[in-house]
Amino acid sequence: MVKRYLELRSLDEALTLLTTSFTAPRRTEKVPIMQAAGRVVAEPIFAKYSVPEVNISAMDGIAVRSRDTLGASDRNPITLEHFTQVNTGNIIPPEFDAVVMIEDVWEAGSSFQIRRAAVPWQHIRPAGEDIKENKLVLPRGHVIRPFDIGALVTYGITTVEVLAVNVGIIPTGSELVPLGVRPGPGQVVESNTVMAQVFLSQMGAHCTRLPIVQDDPDFIRETLRSAVQGNDLVLISAGSSAGTRDFTEDVIRSLGELLFHGVAVKPGKPVMLGRVEGKPVLGLPGYPLAAQTVLREFAAPLLESWGFAPAPRYPVTVRLAQALTSDPGFDEFVPLFVGRIGTTLCGIPRGKGAAVQMATVKANGYTHIPAPLEGYDAGTELEVFLTTDPGSIERTLILTGTLDPALEELAGLAHDEGLYIHATNPGNIAGLLALSSNACHAAPLVLPARSPLTSYKSHIKIPDDSELAFIHVATIEIGIVSRDGLNVSDLTRARFINTRKDTPSRTVLDTLLASEGIDPFQVSGYLQEVHDSPAVAAAIRNGFADAGICTSSIASANGLRFVPVAYEDYELAVRRELLTDPRIRMLITLIRSPTYHAMLRKIGGYTTETTGMIRYLSTDAILTEYPLPVSYPESLQG
Amino acid sequence: MVKRYLELRSLDEALTLLTTSFTAPRRTEKVPIMQAAGRVVAEPIFAKYSVPEVNISAMDGIAVRSRDTLGASDRNPITLEHFTQVNTGNIIPPEFDAVVMIEDVWEAGSSFQIRRAAVPWQHIRPAGEDIKENKLVLPRGHVIRPFDIGALVTYGITTVEVLAVNVGIIPTGSELVPLGVRPGPGQVVESNTVMAQVFLSQMGAHCTRLPIVQDDPDFIRETLRSAVQGNDLVLISAGSSAGTRDFTEDVIRSLGELLFHGVAVKPGKPVMLGRVEGKPVLGLPGYPLAAQTVLREFAAPLLESWGFAPAPRYPVTVRLAQALTSDPGFDEFVPLFVGRIGTTLCGIPRGKGAAVQMATVKANGYTHIPAPLEGYDAGTELEVFLTTDPGSIERTLILTGTLDPALEELAGLAHDEGLYIHATNPGNIAGLLALSSNACHAAPLVLPARSPLTSYKSHIKIPDDSELAFIHVATIEIGIVSRDGLNVSDLTRARFINTRKDTPSRTVLDTLLASEGIDPFQVSGYLQEVHDSPAVAAAIRNGFADAGICTSSIASANGLRFVPVAYEDYELAVRRELLTDPRIRMLITLIRSPTYHAMLRKIGGYTTETTGMIRYLSTDAILTEYPLPVSYPESLQG
Repeated sequence: MVKRYLELRSLDEALTLLTTSFTAPRRTEKVPIMQAAGRVVAEPIFAKYSVPEVNISAMDGIAVRSRDTLGASDRNPITLEHFTQVNTGNIIPPEFDAVVMIEDVWEAGSSFQIRRAAVPWQHIRPAGEDIKENKLVLPRGHVIRPFDIGALVTYGITTVEVLAVNVGIIPTGSELVPLGVRPGPGQVVESNTVMAQVFLSQMGAHCTRLPIVQDDPDFIRETLRSAVQGNDLVLISAGSSAGTRDFTEDVIRSLGELLFHGVAVKPGKPVMLGRVEGKPVLGLPGYPLAAQTVLREFAAPLLESWGFAPAPRYPVTVRLAQALTSDPGFDEFVPLFVGRIGTTLCGIPRGKGAAVQMATVKANGYTHIPAPLEGYDAGTELEVFLTTDPGSIERTLILTGTLDPALEELAGLAHDEGLYIHATNPGNIAGLLALSSNACHAAPLVLPARSPLTSYKSHIKIPDDSELAFIHVATIEIGIVSRDGLNVSDLTRARFINTRKDTPSRTVLDTLLASEGIDPFQVSGYLQEVHDSPAVAAAIRNGFADAGICTSSIASANGLRFVPVAYEDYELAVRRELLTDPRIRMLITLIRSPTYHAMLRKIGGYTTETTGMIRYLSTDAILTEYPLPVSYPESLQG
Repeated sequence: MVKRYLELRSLDEALTLLTTSFTAPRRTEKVPIMQAAGRVVAEPIFAKYSVPEVNISAMDGIAVRSRDTLGASDRNPITLEHFTQVNTGNIIPPEFDAVVMIEDVWEAGSSFQIRRAAVPWQHIRPAGEDIKENKLVLPRGHVIRPFDIGALVTYGITTVEVLAVNVGIIPTGSELVPLGVRPGPGQVVESNTVMAQVFLSQMGAHCTRLPIVQDDPDFIRETLRSAVQGNDLVLISAGSSAGTRDFTEDVIRSLGELLFHGVAVKPGKPVMLGRVEGKPVLGLPGYPLAAQTVLREFAAPLLESWGFAPAPRYPVTVRLAQALTSDPGFDEFVPLFVGRIGTTLCGIPRGKGAAVQMATVKANGYTHIPAPLEGYDAGTELEVFLTTDPGSIERTLILTGTLDPALEELAGLAHDEGLYIHATNPGNIAGLLALSSNACHAAPLVLPARSPLTSYKSHIKIPDDSELAFIHVATIEIGIVSRDGLNVSDLTRARFINTRKDTPSRTVLDTLLASEGIDPFQVSGYLQEVHDSPAVAAAIRNGFADAGICTSSIASANGLRFVPVAYEDYELAVRRELLTDPRIRMLITLIRSPTYHAMLRKIGGYTTETTGMIRYLSTDAILTEYPLPVSYPESLQG
């Protein structure tokens, strides 16, 4: 009953098995030329006729006999007797051997005058100049681009023979619901085969997604048996890890041969390869990022070995913004966000959880950490493959620090102006560290309301002896969140849910307890920490706790009650010299816009009186980590 | 009647007018998620529910109460009383707060034993770990990628609102025939609007190609008047240069306003922009490469200013293999082929003729030469935007020298093995120069048959004190080509067509005339030069000349008669150290293959006895430019 993985194969070994164990299907199909973009030429394409087929004019002008023009000059203009007007593309009659451009002729009655001799064959396009009849236009294997299609049409080609491959995709799992159905508790939408279909279709594959198969070995066996008939490759989604209901391995063994199950790759370890009736059967793990890895690193190379073109991979060299660990012995693939800070491309790992699809959504690239390595230190230069247009990097600002709904709204406004915000939420200190090491453009920080900046003290040095500018985004109301409207005095009787030490709500709580004379350890759950304020609200909404500290906007977004206890300033810290960067200027303009103020008012819980104000902090002053005391709203003072 | 261009605008000025004179249409449409790849998000997309919605297991294993596991170790295994088996994705019942992986449990009767304490919340995916309900998944402006679609489906999204734009495309010109019709003399296939449709469709535009409009201002006016009704942008193809039948400018003026006609850009100078009923009307020049430039540098930026995503542009820095001239005052766009030689990316300009579509087909990138420059010297580093997968560069060999059908056949074989050959035909000397300056992998050369290599002398030094290897491809039969079977003695009575001084057929001719005691100037047309042997055959086939020199394969391909006069060796020169390069080794294997020999025999005119033989030439020896005497076939000797 307790199963373990078969011995893991190395990625290299698995890929060699994958690409050498099967015969290429060599399937082709004829497609109309208008639908050929992105497809791979299966048979060499030859021109149907020469272009041009005869000598034609390359210019608008007049066709002349070059010998008639000898000696023409400004002082000796020659009026032509023999000529014919031609437009670009017109046939040159045999008696003429040159064209004079319309710009170089002067009207002279019913004739024309020229002032310079014509060189024989000037401005004439000889027959076959572009291509000659039966000459190769595109070789086998060429990926057809839009501008190639213009040429093919010109050369008389209306259909092309391109590579084709049929891929059958089987979703398995009793927990799955199909696209469009809202999953119940413990269910998930069957999304991996949708992703597989879209991904492989872009390579030119014809994908057939089969209906969801329940976790039943007989059903899976019958589905696989029929899928290998019409397809050149079959993917079985999920059912390839080592749980009690994973039958795929046994099914493959019963119908054919298992080539491997388990590869030292992360994510994607449970990947499986079988051979049934000579066809490859690839088992996709259930975790979305594992499925992505198997699609990109296994399915795509298999099709590539059959002549298909991979999705273009754009390699760039980036400096790692933070350390990246890796299991030695495993080839790891990690999503990253790449941004440009100054002249350096900077890569921020987006986490390695195989279940968190937002990591890939928020990333614009990925890196491959080879098996022997234990990872990379921050600052290492490494190769990243981009998954977006490289140009989009220049339109993106990287913000690292403490996130708040106020920033999400701002990012929305910025997106509409073509300015993209890549924001991560490691907290104030990590944000300031990133700013120091030039690993972000700006650090969003939550600071005590209306504190003089010079009172800050901390271990964080201001980078490069420069000044920091603090752009005030909004003042945020902080308070006690609960289902029942609990107050400070209720905290010793409630199940509390706390946040990490470096978060603003934690600081507010500690100040509050101190001022009320409450020992933190009287508060049940004081040691139970979640990542951030939204997690606090979620825990309370879901009944895991009764009270916590968060902002009023997060409380109301979760339908919870809120008792205000403090105000804090939400600030964007940037190096002062970056204030001239057009992207930062755009951000300031948006922060100061009435639209943004209105958005914040609509959310509620924000004060915008000083929104857009900029303060500076020079090298002499040192920032405090979490300055005390927190300034209380007047309603709570005294 | 004689029209001149309006004053040319600078590219910058024209682009500013283009992108600021029109209101974005802000058209959107709802598409099913499976069809959303590559489209641009028009309205921010939010998660329909949290994923996961409840706490679920992250592993296959057993759910436990962490407090029950305290103190478990190898020496103190604990047999659990309270547990439940869970698979990955199963709901964690409220009484449990941790999951122990199946790999870490031992069966113990009907229960399980564990040997390590479980940390609270280990292997549990908390509710909302991936995304929380109503949180932003994709902002406005995001280009949807295949893996994004997996996430969207998981988060309950089945349709997305994406940007849309309607583009009307009007082909004008009485010389045009539609796709699929063979053009008569002076006609061309209407291909530019096909190219425009494919190109703009890839950005997400809905294109309507209208039927071809004859060169008649009334027809054009009526077509444009109706096209601006349903479309956000109208392209008028051709009719924008300055010939007698170019009515587009007048038509635009009669219906609206002309913003510019003529921009200092090459190719693409005749580009035109008008405004009719508030809509942009862009005039595409007729020359295909000019039309490409206007699509890529004008139409795409206009759509981009409306929020559409450009085709990804991947910039690389390349070393220019040969000088590239440019008209100062003009922004020029030049197609290039980029290859990797050693560690350097090397860029070979593909010519600047606006009519030669094969230049773009054979290129894998292009460069922009800014208006102030007069071009670049060979060896300059410049930025090139790739139009193919960067990975394809590593699979390509650059061959520079003298081309022959024998090489085309070889390239065909290589393509089938995934090895791409980029071959250009500047002649022997240029090929050796390219080899010296590391601007090609190999130089195909036509040399006198069976000459000892050491007899070669020339000004070409062998690069880097290394050795050159000469891979023998085939021996080629050379002779007199004519419609009527002319012989050497007939040359003084025939209209001859010659080739350039550095071509093998020219050398053969000069040797032949010398041996026959014929003064070249007795030969009519001796000074009339065309580019290469195929052009000689074409000139004779078309009746422009009576006789020339070429290979028997070219003669028979043109249906001409052939009288053999000499043999020459077709050799591939490479630096000796490159013989270990897997691509060169593949090429040698193919040259030696029976398949290749059979192909050459099928073409005819080749001797393959020593095909595949490799000879070396060390630094001491110096290659001759065109060594004499040419060795004659025995049939002609004595």
